[in-house]
Amino acid sequence: MSETRTPASPAQAEKSLGLERLIFFSDAVFAIIITLLALDLRLPESVEHPSNAATAAALVAMLPKFLAYFLSFFIIGLYWLGHHRMFNLIRRYDRVLLWLNLILLSFIGLVPFVTALLSETGNSIATLLYAAVMGLVGLASASMWFYSTNGGRLLDHLIEPKLWQRMMLRTLIAPAVFLLSIPLAFIDNDLAKYSWVIIAAVIFVHI
Amino acid sequence: MSETRTPASPAQAEKSLGLERLIFFSDAVFAIIITLLALDLRLPESVEHPSNAATAAALVAMLPKFLAYFLSFFIIGLYWLGHHRMFNLIRRYDRVLLWLNLILLSFIGLVPFVTALLSETGNSIATLLYAAVMGLVGLASASMWFYSTNGGRLLDHLIEPKLWQRMMLRTLIAPAVFLLSIPLAFIDNDLAKYSWVIIAAVIFVHI
Amino acid sequence: MSETRTPASPAQAEKSLGLERLIFFSDAVFAIIITLLALDLRLPESVEHPSNAATAAALVAMLPKFLAYFLSFFIIGLYWLGHHRMFNLIRRYDRVLLWLNLILLSFIGLVPFVTALLSETGNSIATLLYAAVMGLVGLASASMWFYSTNGGRLLDHLIEPKLWQRMMLRTLIAPAVFLLSIPLAFIDNDLAKYSWVIIAAVIFVHI
Amino acid sequence: MSETRTPASPAQAEKSLGLERLIFFSDAVFAIIITLLALDLRLPESVEHPSNAATAAALVAMLPKFLAYFLSFFIIGLYWLGHHRMFNLIRRYDRVLLWLNLILLSFIGLVPFVTALLSETGNSIATLLYAAVMGLVGLASASMWFYSTNGGRLLDHLIEPKLWQRMMLRTLIAPAVFLLSIPLAFIDNDLAKYSWVIIAAVIFVHI
Repeated sequence: MSETRTPASPAQAEKSLGLERLIFFSDAVFAIIITLLALDLRLPESVEHPSNAATAAALVAMLPKFLAYFLSFFIIGLYWLGHHRMFNLIRRYDRVLLWLNLILLSFIGLVPFVTALLSETGNSIATLLYAAVMGLVGLASASMWFYSTNGGRLLDHLIEPKLWQRMMLRTLIAPAVFLLSIPLAFIDNDLAKYSWVIIAAVIFVHI
Repeated sequence: MSETRTPASPAQAEKSLGLERLIFFSDAVFAIIITLLALDLRLPESVEHPSNAATAAALVAMLPKFLAYFLSFFIIGLYWLGHHRMFNLIRRYDRVLLWLNLILLSFIGLVPFVTALLSETGNSIATLLYAAVMGLVGLASASMWFYSTNGGRLLDHLIEPKLWQRMMLRTLIAPAVFLLSIPLAFIDNDLAKYSWVIIAAVIFVHI
Repeated sequence: MSETRTPASPAQAEKSLGLERLIFFSDAVFAIIITLLALDLRLPESVEHPSNAATAAALVAMLPKFLAYFLSFFIIGLYWLGHHRMFNLIRRYDRVLLWLNLILLSFIGLVPFVTALLSETGNSIATLLYAAVMGLVGLASASMWFYSTNGGRLLDHLIEPKLWQRMMLRTLIAPAVFLLSIPLAFIDNDLAKYSWVIIAAVIFVHI
Repeated sequence: MSETRTPASPAQAEKSLGLERLIFFSDAVFAIIITLLALDLRLPESVEHPSNAATAAALVAMLPKFLAYFLSFFIIGLYWLGHHRMFNLIRRYDRVLLWLNLILLSFIGLVPFVTALLSETGNSIATLLYAAVMGLVGLASASMWFYSTNGGRLLDHLIEPKLWQRMMLRTLIAPAVFLLSIPLAFIDNDLAKYSWVIIAAVIFVHI
C-alpha cells in the first residue's frame, strides 16, 4: 500500500478517511450480524389460523431460541463495545491491522450459525462450537489490541505500562472463559453455558 | 472505560468520534431491521406459470402481510425519528447510555418476528406479543431520554423544566398505548390493533 | 420537533448532523435492499452432486431471475443516484421531508418482493405490481424534489425557474413510463417490460 | 448532473459530501454481501435433539460450506481493500465512475449465490461460474482504477508513469488468474480452485 500513500494522499488524509472507512465497515458488519440473529426467530409450523393456546405453546417451545438470541446479541454487543473502545485509541492503521480486523469479522460472521446450532440441537458439540467461535472472536480482538498498542505502534501516545498490562489482561478474560468452557461442555453441558454468564457479569461491571 | 479516556483520547475526540459511531451503529441496526421486514413478503406457493387470477388471489390473501409490513415500517420509522431527535440533543455518552441503547436495539431486533407472527396467526397472543415488544422498545427509548436529559446529564445545556416534563410525557405516549392495548387484545383483538393507529396519528401531529 | 431545536442544538448542528443521519439512514436502506435482491438467487432443487449438465440446465432455467436481478439492481441504483443528486442540493430538512423520505423507503422495501414475483410468475399481474411499486417510488422521489426545491424551501439558493422546470420534468419521466406501462401489461406483457428499458436508456443519457 | 452543480452546490461540497456518500454506499454493499455469505451456513436437517455424533457428522459434511465461506469472505475482503485503496487516491467523481461502481457492486451481489453453488454442487460448471463472477468483479475494479487514474482524471496529482503501470498490472492479477482458471476447471476442477489460493497469497504479500 506504500505507493498509494506517496503521491496523492498525504498521511493526514490516510489517517482520517482511511481509518474512518475501516471503522465504518466493521461497524456495518457488526450491525448486520447482530440483526441477522433475529432471522432465526420463526414459528416452526404454520397452521392456518392457530388458536391462542397453540400459538402460546409454540412460543414457549421457542424459549431456547429467544435465550440464545439475547445471549449472542449481548456478547456481540460487548465485543462491539470493545472494538469501539480500541478504535477510540487507535490513530493509524497498517496492513496487519486490516487483516486482523478482517479475520475478526470473519469469525463474527459465524455467530448466527453457532447461535442457531446451540438453540436447535442443545448438545455438547453445539456448546463446543459456540464457545470456540466466541473464543476465536475474543482472541482476534485481543490480538488487535496487542498489535496496535504494543510499544504504542498505532497510537499517538505510549500507554503507561501498568495500565497497558491491565488492559491486555482484560481483553483476555472473555476468550479465556469461552475456551475453558469447552472441556466443561463434555462434563456438564449446562454448567458450560452458565460459565458464559460470568463473562457478561464481569465485563458489565468492569467495562 | 475510564482508562481509555485518560491517556490518548481527549474528551473532545470521545465526544465526536465515539458518539458518532454509537449513532451510526444504531442507525445501521434500525435500517437493517426496517428492511428485514420486507423479507417476510413472499408468495406462499410457487406453482409453475400461475394464471393472472391465481396470482391476484394469492396477493389478496397476502393483504395482512402488507398491512403488517407498513404498520411496523412506520412504527420503527417513528422510533428512529425519536432516536434521531434525542441524539440531536445529546452531546456525551457514558456506559449506561451504551447499555440502554443496546437493550433498545435488542428489542427492535424482535420486531420482524412479532410482525410475522401478527400477520400469520392474527390471534390475541400475537397481538399481545406485538404490543409487548413495541411497548418495550418505547420504554427503552423513554429510559434513554430520561437518563440523558435528567439534570442535563449528557447535554450541553439544561432543558427548561416545563419543556422537559412535556418531552418526558410525549416519550411515554407510545409505550403507554401499546401496553394498555394488551388487555384490550383479550376483549377485542381488532380493537387493540386499531388503538395503535391512534399512536401513529397522535405522534404524526405532535412530532 | 421545534422544542429540540431551541435550547441545546443550534440551527447549524441541526443542518449538519441531522441531515447527515437522514442521508446515512436512507443510503443504508438503499444498500440493504439492493443486496437483498441477491437473496432470491438460489438453485431450485438440491440434488446431491449434480452433473455439469444438470447444473447448467438449472442455471439456464434461472435466467429470468438473473435478468430481474440486474433490472431491479440498476433501477434502484438510478433512484439512489437521484436521491444522491437531490441531497447534494438540500441544505435543511423538516418534518415533511422526513415523512416523504420514510414513504419513499417503504416503497423501496417492496422491490425485492415484486422482483421475485416478476421472475417467478412472469404474468401480467406481476408486471402490473412491479410497475406500480417502481412508479410509486418514482412519485415519492418526485414529491421530495418538488417539496424541497419549490420556492427554494430547503435550499440555500433559489433555482433558476427554467432550470427548475426541466428538473421537475426529468424526475417525472421514470414514474410516468412505469405507470403508463401498466395498461400495456394487459395488451402485451413483454412490451410493457421492454418499455422500462427506455427509462434506463433515457436516464442513462440525460443524468 | 451538470445542473445540480451550478447553482447551489459548489465544487467543494460535491467533492466531499458526494464522494463520501458514494464510498459509504459501496462500503455498506460490501459489508452486507460479506455477511450474507454466512446465511448459507445452516444445518441441513433438523432432527429433534440430535446426538453429539449426529451433529458432529453433520458439521463435517458442511466442511465445503465453511471453506467456501472463508474463501469468499477473504476474496471480497481483498476487493474491498482494493476499493478502499483506490478511493484513498480519488478526489472527484463523475457519471462514469458512478456507473462503473454500480456495475462492480452488481457483480459483488452475485458472490453469495456462486459461493453456495460452489459448495453445494462442487462441479466444473460451479467452478466456472464462481471464477467468472470473481473475474468480472476484478475487471470492473480494474476499469475503475484505469478510468479514474488515467491522466490523473479524478486525482489531485498525476501518478508517476512507471508507478502507474505497476498499479495497473497489479489490479489485473486477480481477474487474470480467475479467468484463466475457467479452462482449468474442465481439465481438473480441483486444480482450478487451488489456483485461486495463489491470488490470495500473491495479493497478501504485495498489498
